[in-house]
Amino acid sequence: MQKTTFSFDIQAVSRELSEEVLAQINQKTKPPGSLGQLEELALQIALIQNTAKRSLTVKNPHVLVFAGDHGIAENNISIAGSEVTAQMVANFLSGGAAINALSKANQCQVKVINSGVKHDIPASVVKEVEFINFSAGNGTADLSQSSAMTHEQLKQCFSAGVAVIENHVPEDCDVIALGEMGIGNTSSAAALLGVLLNAEAVEVVGRGTGISDTQFQMKTELVQNAIHRVSSEYQKKGDVKLVLQELGGFEIAQMCSAMLCAAKRRKIILVDGFIVTAAAMIAIAIEPNVKDFMVFSHCSQEQAHQKMLDTLKVKPLLNLGMRLGEGTGAVMAVPILRSAVAFYNEMATFDSLGIKV
Amino acid sequence: MQKTTFSFDIQAVSRELSEEVLAQINQKTKPPGSLGQLEELALQIALIQNTAKRSLTVKNPHVLVFAGDHGIAENNISIAGSEVTAQMVANFLSGGAAINALSKANQCQVKVINSGVKHDIPASVVKEVEFINFSAGNGTADLSQSSAMTHEQLKQCFSAGVAVIENHVPEDCDVIALGEMGIGNTSSAAALLGVLLNAEAVEVVGRGTGISDTQFQMKTELVQNAIHRVSSEYQKKGDVKLVLQELGGFEIAQMCSAMLCAAKRRKIILVDGFIVTAAAMIAIAIEPNVKDFMVFSHCSQEQAHQKMLDTLKVKPLLNLGMRLGEGTGAVMAVPILRSAVAFYNEMATFDSLGIKV
Repeated sequence: MQKTTFSFDIQAVSRELSEEVLAQINQKTKPPGSLGQLEELALQIALIQNTAKRSLTVKNPHVLVFAGDHGIAENNISIAGSEVTAQMVANFLSGGAAINALSKANQCQVKVINSGVKHDIPASVVKEVEFINFSAGNGTADLSQSSAMTHEQLKQCFSAGVAVIENHVPEDCDVIALGEMGIGNTSSAAALLGVLLNAEAVEVVGRGTGISDTQFQMKTELVQNAIHRVSSEYQKKGDVKLVLQELGGFEIAQMCSAMLCAAKRRKIILVDGFIVTAAAMIAIAIEPNVKDFMVFSHCSQEQAHQKMLDTLKVKPLLNLGMRLGEGTGAVMAVPILRSAVAFYNEMATFDSLGIKV
Repeated sequence: MQKTTFSFDIQAVSRELSEEVLAQINQKTKPPGSLGQLEELALQIALIQNTAKRSLTVKNPHVLVFAGDHGIAENNISIAGSEVTAQMVANFLSGGAAINALSKANQCQVKVINSGVKHDIPASVVKEVEFINFSAGNGTADLSQSSAMTHEQLKQCFSAGVAVIENHVPEDCDVIALGEMGIGNTSSAAALLGVLLNAEAVEVVGRGTGISDTQFQMKTELVQNAIHRVSSEYQKKGDVKLVLQELGGFEIAQMCSAMLCAAKRRKIILVDGFIVTAAAMIAIAIEPNVKDFMVFSHCSQEQAHQKMLDTLKVKPLLNLGMRLGEGTGAVMAVPILRSAVAFYNEMATFDSLGIKV
């Protein structure tokens, strides 16, 4: 594995091309602006691919599903225990999960990463998709009580995120969608958000995929502990990597690094829901230029996701009431990328039709 | 052409299967409800296709683009004159329009219908897509002054809508998306909506694809005239077909009939934006059961479209700020249909994985 670095030195997209790209878009045979967010998306992709030519591409999209467990889950604040993380990883591998069905429907390649699952993946599982092992441990420590991971583990996760992109994503892949699985990881994401926004737990904790009132109350208390534990240090020093180490999950840290590496390689990054957006916020805090490469795919039903999107000042493409994770929202956005590229590359111009406007 | 009838005798979907379909959905390896609108969509498609089996299909989707002109456009209340309808039809036929690019990206077949375009389609155009001629005239009369069409023309349009579905859509097509083109047709749709809701023109008139303040004021006045002309008769007699004859366009009438015929054949109907939804509202007023077959694809930027969707009590799938028409919003929803069917057909169940929930 390569030497760990937290510095990715990402170049922002060059806005010099914007005018030329917008001129192209406005010459298309349609009223200006009438394709709405598709037009903004075409501009973003053109800038990422650094061309105003009608040759934008959405080749070979991949969804990388990072799985990891969380010590905080031992407090019975999730709909299921940590053993379900391993069971769902087995389900991803054998092709029976939502992310498999939706990736197939939207022509997207799935790869699964063991970022640090607590329980063993059943050896008997027939693998339909690639399984990449970068386990940083058998789940994190309980972030409501202590640092979720060691600095060594954080470094290991950053190396792993880079290695996934460099060694497991083919060169011709234009789009990297991020997904996750990990019982307890909404608590981690909520705590990260709480510290980043200097907010209270009640403002950032949601019901995850569906918990009871008692569990919800307990979850809120534990996340409040976590926020209190880390917040003042962050307000003083602003070290976002320390926040990630204290409150993150292995899958969140690896996604954060994978996004930074993907941006370095000028890929389109498709951000999924609440957990992936938490990783995106950390990545942006580390290297603001990474945001130029991010497309926010959907708004999750998890209540604080809208707060994240508002903080980032982004409008997601979809709002289908989904709250599953796995990258399911992200792969649903792949056809929208294809549509944006298609209108940009293929539509006639008023000039070419001899129509005066 | 078959004998004209305004009665389609559409059977509602049978809700007897609902319980079985929902039980299937809730057995999938995901928290209940976590796929949001995809789950509602899978249920709707299962009921349309009248099966709870994991064999739902979204085969061979078609988008039918109905083009017609409007006499009201002679009052200079649109961004372009009626000659642009013919020019855009030529653009559809040669494959250069937004609907062509987006249909290709979303694997959907385009067919174009001349419902009553005023100007000649340039004979030189190279036809990449099928062009179906059911012209009911060289545009409607000015609906702000008089009946938009004769009763004979309305009947002709209803026969044409049926003939398009019966003779130009292959048997294996599961999804019929409707699109339109017609300079002036937002005025027609606004007037229809105004009468159906007993509303004033200011509540239903929008800027279409982008007009000036003066044009907007004139458009509002003319639509107000039209609403006044027709409203009290409708409030008294409730004859929605008469409203369509007075205020509709040839393309709106044909789409209305095509939707009714598509429902009769148990196809999924993808409704596009403001104009197509106006046609859908008329179709529902004629035969309420047609609504069971309709999927509302997106919310247009045209201001009163949200009002239509609220009136129909439906939540559209997409909200991408589009306001182009042509069926562009509808074809963007095709991958969402495919995704709904994919998760229903392909996902594993908790039982099959031996996971207890």
